[in-house]
Amino acid sequence: MKRMNRRTMLKTMGMVGCATGCLASGLLPGAVPFTGPLSGPGNAVAGTTSGRFAQKDAPFSWKPHVLDAKVCAHVAYDGYWHQGYGCAYGVFYAIVGMMGEQHGAPYNQFPFTMLEVGKSGISDWGTICGALLGAASAFALFWGRKERDPMVAELFRWYEQTAFPMHDPGAAFKGVAGALPTSVSHSPLCHVSVGRWCQASGFAEKSTERGERCARITADVATQAIAIMNAKQAGTFAVAHGDPASVTYCGECHNPGKQSPLLKGKMDCTPCHSGSPHTADKFKNHP
Amino acid sequence: MKRMNRRTMLKTMGMVGCATGCLASGLLPGAVPFTGPLSGPGNAVAGTTSGRFAQKDAPFSWKPHVLDAKVCAHVAYDGYWHQGYGCAYGVFYAIVGMMGEQHGAPYNQFPFTMLEVGKSGISDWGTICGALLGAASAFALFWGRKERDPMVAELFRWYEQTAFPMHDPGAAFKGVAGALPTSVSHSPLCHVSVGRWCQASGFAEKSTERGERCARITADVATQAIAIMNAKQAGTFAVAHGDPASVTYCGECHNPGKQSPLLKGKMDCTPCHSGSPHTADKFKNHP
Repeated sequence: MKRMNRRTMLKTMGMVGCATGCLASGLLPGAVPFTGPLSGPGNAVAGTTSGRFAQKDAPFSWKPHVLDAKVCAHVAYDGYWHQGYGCAYGVFYAIVGMMGEQHGAPYNQFPFTMLEVGKSGISDWGTICGALLGAASAFALFWGRKERDPMVAELFRWYEQTAFPMHDPGAAFKGVAGALPTSVSHSPLCHVSVGRWCQASGFAEKSTERGERCARITADVATQAIAIMNAKQAGTFAVAHGDPASVTYCGECHNPGKQSPLLKGKMDCTPCHSGSPHTADKFKNHP
Repeated sequence: MKRMNRRTMLKTMGMVGCATGCLASGLLPGAVPFTGPLSGPGNAVAGTTSGRFAQKDAPFSWKPHVLDAKVCAHVAYDGYWHQGYGCAYGVFYAIVGMMGEQHGAPYNQFPFTMLEVGKSGISDWGTICGALLGAASAFALFWGRKERDPMVAELFRWYEQTAFPMHDPGAAFKGVAGALPTSVSHSPLCHVSVGRWCQASGFAEKSTERGERCARITADVATQAIAIMNAKQAGTFAVAHGDPASVTYCGECHNPGKQSPLLKGKMDCTPCHSGSPHTADKFKNHP
């Protein structure tokens, strides 16, 4: 009751809009509300080297370079295995590290091992697929959200809908050789992507085959991410992978302005909201 | 059938173990299999400034500094609103940016706006909570996975179990003033965390209240992350938030070596696998 009263009070006081609240709080010019795409190369502001929120270079100001996806795919695969740094490191190094090898600073000044954080869905948590995190993080060095978000969406939708793995390391394999079973994740989440593949293939999560599968996906994601970046630089980037039917259907009631506008995110709704045996009550009636 | 035959063939050929496959592939010393925690300060190797996988500084070699969580919480809150860069940027700047303000390089050389990628669960996708991504990414500048993973687990478990938001910006608010409704996410995922709060509070996902809630969580996560980092530096870090019952229960069959060892990750299983109305079939029998 107390919470609802407080909320009602806030609304009654008119303290709900930024037009009111921000002015009342003395919001400085340049500090904008949380909505609205104001960043990106077209709107980049000069970097400040001192003061709060200063940084060395202007936001999103690193210059992208065209990369050879075929070369970088092998680097991504090797990066996955290198010191066991994993998928996010592999993709990120295949993009930013390769620019560093070819063009030096600022690319080669980056502390690349930071991206090990994405391994196994962030320190083994199974959240975002680290390969996707590595790619999206690389995009964010070059493009602010207005331009980056469609690039990320294209990459993530492609990932949701593609049967992985595709990359074949040939004789340079580091886990197991030859073809592997494939599966479609329908999700950008590590937990779902790996779980589906393990169930489809019969291999354990800790198997070398599963590691090999993820190393190959690291190469696959690097390849697709580089294709998107190269197209962006050439001015030919276009969205090729649209929203799944579930996102359109659920959005009819849960998008902004609809009767229950609480939907957050862009993920395909079906893996968790279709009443499948996988999301039935596993604690009482395990299918 | 073809897939199973291929898999059976691989097993028959003995091409499944790294002991065989890696030697056969001419794996170089230093490139290790995907399992096993070999990184961390105790195992840090010197950075190489040229060659494949080179980086300026040795892996995970940045020196951490003790921070004042009370000061940094306000910086995290402001960082969320600054240019609309969001939650991951806010937490990351409150840690690494504040070290840069106080200690200069290498901290202030980081391209902080890269962390905008975490906004709304990575470019609006609703996957990992960006505040958690920002904290975990900061940890990864200082600690390799052997030491970092327990720190991340402690932060993420705390997040799953805590009623947010807690931070009160007082007169320095930028969205709405005063107390806000709270909810427990039981998940490190943005989609689940925001969705639960919107349902509990009645506020829309695109409301200024929701933005304010996430700005305050940005401060909350920065506070907890800094407490963990300070404790780690003092040698007093200890896990305080254990696994939920679901993780233990499900692990009895799905952990390594068990009958169905396909579980990936550490997330609380209940949000998606308890057969709740939220994960029932929304496409045919919408509860």
